[in-house]
Amino acid sequence: MYGAGDVRVEDRPDPKIAEPTDAVIRTVAACVCGSDLWPYGSMPATDNGRPMGHEFLGVVEETGAEVTGLQAGDLVVAPFTYCDNTCDYCARGLHIACRAGGRYGFDGVDGGQGEAVRVPYADGTLVKLPVAADSALVPSLLALSDVMTTGHHGAVTAGVGRGDTVLVIGDGAVGLCAVIAARRLGAERIVLAGRHGQRTDLGKEFGATDVVAERGAEGVARIRDLTGGVGKVIEAVGTREALDTALGTVLDGGVISRLGVPQYEQGPLGRTEFRRNITLTGGASPARAYIEHLLPDVLDGTIDPGRVFDRRFALDQAPDAYRAMAERRVLKALIHP
Amino acid sequence: MYGAGDVRVEDRPDPKIAEPTDAVIRTVAACVCGSDLWPYGSMPATDNGRPMGHEFLGVVEETGAEVTGLQAGDLVVAPFTYCDNTCDYCARGLHIACRAGGRYGFDGVDGGQGEAVRVPYADGTLVKLPVAADSALVPSLLALSDVMTTGHHGAVTAGVGRGDTVLVIGDGAVGLCAVIAARRLGAERIVLAGRHGQRTDLGKEFGATDVVAERGAEGVARIRDLTGGVGKVIEAVGTREALDTALGTVLDGGVISRLGVPQYEQGPLGRTEFRRNITLTGGASPARAYIEHLLPDVLDGTIDPGRVFDRRFALDQAPDAYRAMAERRVLKALIHP
Repeated sequence: MYGAGDVRVEDRPDPKIAEPTDAVIRTVAACVCGSDLWPYGSMPATDNGRPMGHEFLGVVEETGAEVTGLQAGDLVVAPFTYCDNTCDYCARGLHIACRAGGRYGFDGVDGGQGEAVRVPYADGTLVKLPVAADSALVPSLLALSDVMTTGHHGAVTAGVGRGDTVLVIGDGAVGLCAVIAARRLGAERIVLAGRHGQRTDLGKEFGATDVVAERGAEGVARIRDLTGGVGKVIEAVGTREALDTALGTVLDGGVISRLGVPQYEQGPLGRTEFRRNITLTGGASPARAYIEHLLPDVLDGTIDPGRVFDRRFALDQAPDAYRAMAERRVLKALIHP
Repeated sequence: MYGAGDVRVEDRPDPKIAEPTDAVIRTVAACVCGSDLWPYGSMPATDNGRPMGHEFLGVVEETGAEVTGLQAGDLVVAPFTYCDNTCDYCARGLHIACRAGGRYGFDGVDGGQGEAVRVPYADGTLVKLPVAADSALVPSLLALSDVMTTGHHGAVTAGVGRGDTVLVIGDGAVGLCAVIAARRLGAERIVLAGRHGQRTDLGKEFGATDVVAERGAEGVARIRDLTGGVGKVIEAVGTREALDTALGTVLDGGVISRLGVPQYEQGPLGRTEFRRNITLTGGASPARAYIEHLLPDVLDGTIDPGRVFDRRFALDQAPDAYRAMAERRVLKALIHP
């Protein structure tokens, strides 16, 4: 990406093992993230560009001398940040804060939207998958890279449990995966706030019991009418309007878990929120912590988050994939190198 | 209170039963709250004044026709807001949000700093105490009205458990009670941030293992040096500076529980806090939910939060009590009508 709206497919040097803990992965499937649309909308023009993509699944091509858990030919999925899986944060399940970890597309590490990626700390980062690269499960397994593990993070941090009423704000891929996660954790009633009919229809198939298309004050009123207020809210958009909808619908003593990257710096933390005992939680998902936990449910078909991918693109169509997602013509674009 | 710095002791009409669910309580002990010091510092001058006090313990004088659980002569403690203890919020343990509840000193209900109080929803609000009005336990039982149950709320919402390292910011009565609560819930290391030697000394007796007197960036650096960062922070001040200290010392993935009434409206909720997975929780304590839970530990001497009362005042000395607390000469003033 060279700037807002400017995505180019270019030749880059083949990734090579740089550290003995690296692996090089030949990408089988990658995708465009909702969070990629923020720079796609606003990134200042640059001369050098930035490698894109942090969700990918592929086949191990080569491993460094210290990699012991993987070998060439293994099919693996990568969480959306790399991590050593051994530091104190990883040990606590907060792999996103790994002391050795980092992001794809930065610091000489490739982006996932390409033919191959050098993955640091391969043993810690990558999860081996017991299926073939042409498995029909590939989209759902790829979803473990980010959207499904992010939706799950929202449901876990919101404390969703059996019998709960949960509000999910946002009908993007993360919001829809949050519906899957809330349902999976036993929520009885799941209200999905979103205004794209096709997406909310998929949300209903995933377990949403109610859909609210209205936004702003009207949306708040409608959700309050339906539920009398909600104890657990998963905010999967990231705008201030979405946060205000969460604050307007959450019950006193309730929890708002934020999954959308906030497009604001400050938010309401005054006496009203204090008096109401609102808990604000969530954040960037420690995807690596959840992949093995959710994997069995993907393998046996209990959940099929891959359904969020509603269109496939070849790698050289990546600019089209961004445009289609930005124009909301596509929910989530799968990219096949 | 007629305005900032203007507290007067006046004759007011004797409280009478107004609703069949009321009780009239003859006050045995009351106190001044740290939160009373905010209006004492800044309240605009008024002609009518505002009855003050929301922490009191006393003897039932009269009960309304529908009060069944109390009778004249019972010694009772009042949580700092009244509640019916039957609504959906009370049923969930969030008595502070009781649909029928309210605050002392408002809407025709007396303040607790006086000779007698009409208490609405007496059966739901008041907790009967199995001691005499002249018991040496009275100060610690009075502390259940607010400071001890508030400190406990901080420790509970921060999720304090066995072996934890906890930071308590603020050496006021609530901060010191939060130390008691964290210790009681099994915290192994308790860092108390406060700069009043007498108070932090008491904090050490309550269970603080380290004291940090420095504030601002210096305090953050010192706490980080000592602990490497803290997973659970209880913020018992309410200023933006205290919140910044909490944010500067909490580990990624950690919890900040706010107990001090915030003296700010907006706070940092942007990408940094999101990336760090910080949870903000706490708020006004549902004191009523905790009184019976903590009562046995007060009765058997396991905890003695009454030690925060370091000076007694007669009711007609109430203006002195406010001044002494505002000037930090007194930690918490006990008022005997």
